[in-house]
Amino acid sequence: MNEGLTYREAGVDLEAAGRAKARLAELVDATRTDAVASRFGSFGGRFRSTPGRDLVASVDGVGTKLKVAFLSGRHDTVGVDLVNHCVNDILAEGARPLVFMDYVACGRLEPDVVTSVVSGLARACVENGCALVGGETAEMPDFYAEGEYDLAGFVVGEVAYPALGERDVKEGDILLGLASSGFHTNGYSFVRRLVFDRLGLDVSDAFPGSDRSVADVLLTPHRSYLGYLEPGLTAGRIRALAHITGGGIPGNLDRVLPPDLDAAVRTSSWTPPLEFEVMERESGAPRDELFRVFNMGVGMIAIVSPDEADAAAAEATAAGCETFAIGEVVGGEGRVRLLE
Amino acid sequence: MNEGLTYREAGVDLEAAGRAKARLAELVDATRTDAVASRFGSFGGRFRSTPGRDLVASVDGVGTKLKVAFLSGRHDTVGVDLVNHCVNDILAEGARPLVFMDYVACGRLEPDVVTSVVSGLARACVENGCALVGGETAEMPDFYAEGEYDLAGFVVGEVAYPALGERDVKEGDILLGLASSGFHTNGYSFVRRLVFDRLGLDVSDAFPGSDRSVADVLLTPHRSYLGYLEPGLTAGRIRALAHITGGGIPGNLDRVLPPDLDAAVRTSSWTPPLEFEVMERESGAPRDELFRVFNMGVGMIAIVSPDEADAAAAEATAAGCETFAIGEVVGGEGRVRLLE
Repeated sequence: MNEGLTYREAGVDLEAAGRAKARLAELVDATRTDAVASRFGSFGGRFRSTPGRDLVASVDGVGTKLKVAFLSGRHDTVGVDLVNHCVNDILAEGARPLVFMDYVACGRLEPDVVTSVVSGLARACVENGCALVGGETAEMPDFYAEGEYDLAGFVVGEVAYPALGERDVKEGDILLGLASSGFHTNGYSFVRRLVFDRLGLDVSDAFPGSDRSVADVLLTPHRSYLGYLEPGLTAGRIRALAHITGGGIPGNLDRVLPPDLDAAVRTSSWTPPLEFEVMERESGAPRDELFRVFNMGVGMIAIVSPDEADAAAAEATAAGCETFAIGEVVGGEGRVRLLE
Repeated sequence: MNEGLTYREAGVDLEAAGRAKARLAELVDATRTDAVASRFGSFGGRFRSTPGRDLVASVDGVGTKLKVAFLSGRHDTVGVDLVNHCVNDILAEGARPLVFMDYVACGRLEPDVVTSVVSGLARACVENGCALVGGETAEMPDFYAEGEYDLAGFVVGEVAYPALGERDVKEGDILLGLASSGFHTNGYSFVRRLVFDRLGLDVSDAFPGSDRSVADVLLTPHRSYLGYLEPGLTAGRIRALAHITGGGIPGNLDRVLPPDLDAAVRTSSWTPPLEFEVMERESGAPRDELFRVFNMGVGMIAIVSPDEADAAAAEATAAGCETFAIGEVVGGEGRVRLLE
């Protein structure tokens, strides 16, 4: 069950933290049935209807990346973000997606906008081999500003790679980082403050140091790792996967670590792409904060045994995704250590 | 696949209707896989992972009923609305709920409010025997007003009553109406305009003609029909179910009619409860409009053969839900006729 984790943010921001979190965990625990098969801290909720055939469900939103879509009038990429985010979450639990459903809420329905959003959802569904089986479009005039909407999605998949759920991580295992396609769907409050407010840029301006526009850089879709990791997963090379979303590497990689092991991440082992450099340079924020807000160029981390690392990396590269050996698993207490 | 139906509202409101709807259907169709088992117009998306074990998923929101929760500072009922709405939708497809996930989006996280919302979700999950396996709480400062939030939910169930999906409706079948618990989650833009704007009432005022407060009447949770219908479903008495939500009886009962049969609904066969009478009297809206906006006291309609009708009614009544024989199935063309 990941309710505890998804409500984690409340714990970060507020005093009532511990109490609220404990109460939520209690409330959620009280609903547990025989159909539930997840453990605390999962990337998705695991359940079963048929013995031996586990399913995994996950829900997510696009967050304030939507504001960039509104500003640029480009609505066909946020659906891709949403589907791929959800697909990556259940992939980290060893599941391949079966079906997807969306929730779009807006002040006033604009058919062209909805069609554009759904076109992105549908494209990503086809790419991930899952079916769009339903959706809800809610018209809520007093909730959303003119021309704005919120978008959430829900995926159900079936466990195809059960070894991932075992999380049989061992000391000496290699942390294989898979390149992100940019900011994905995290850190957009930070990005927007910096790019629009502090730098005063418009979506049509060139992104600093780039010949791509601000809209192009900021709306680059969150990629799906399903195709890149399929070969390694099928070959049984991967022991655990961490999808790097809100909380960054330190806030997500820890979710797959046993209590007596740490992940030692050498941050100098890859070069964060331009957009992250710009965030660092222009914000002056400390590196530790940037690593909590952004994926910093690594959107998924596969934990593999040392003798499988080269093969897993080669397979992901052949499938089209750059990889970096970014560290290893060492003795510890379930924490992520960011080293130089 | 119900994407076409859930986007139906766009078709009602706007000129671009047909085009947008056709395009959406095309987009959704392109994502179809072997896992999909629904037909067009379903109350939920049907899919399978194991042959012979169909699953049904559905997504919904609470709509502007949330505004009443904000006004009255009472957040522990909207979660019940959401879960029960979703459970009823998949029940209409013959499925019992397995798991539920929520999406809460707000401007600033208030742990007490989130805890209260989740307490409602959890309570309803327990009552329906389904597990809350995850959720996403999104903090989106520039999207939602202070103290406001949006709430959506997703349910997955497994088909336990396959006969319902067959929709073997015949001429002469009885329409058995099950009493609603009030407005459920539909018509709240109408309700709020009338109660707060036109009548100038406050949430703490008495509801017209009632000793209950406006908040009590307007926040009465959408009931779940699972427990009321279980005996009849188990005994195989029910041929089809229509969950009466947005669009009312005419906009939902038609979804389970064969193309050569009509549903003849005698609106004088039950008395709409007080709250609907108040809507009619104070708004002066024509009855036909009221029947499109509200459930008018009938939240679920079971279609049963004439020789099973008494037993099905008696079982639902024994389980705690009032029923009305509201009409019958007659020759026609797949339409709902509202008679006196």
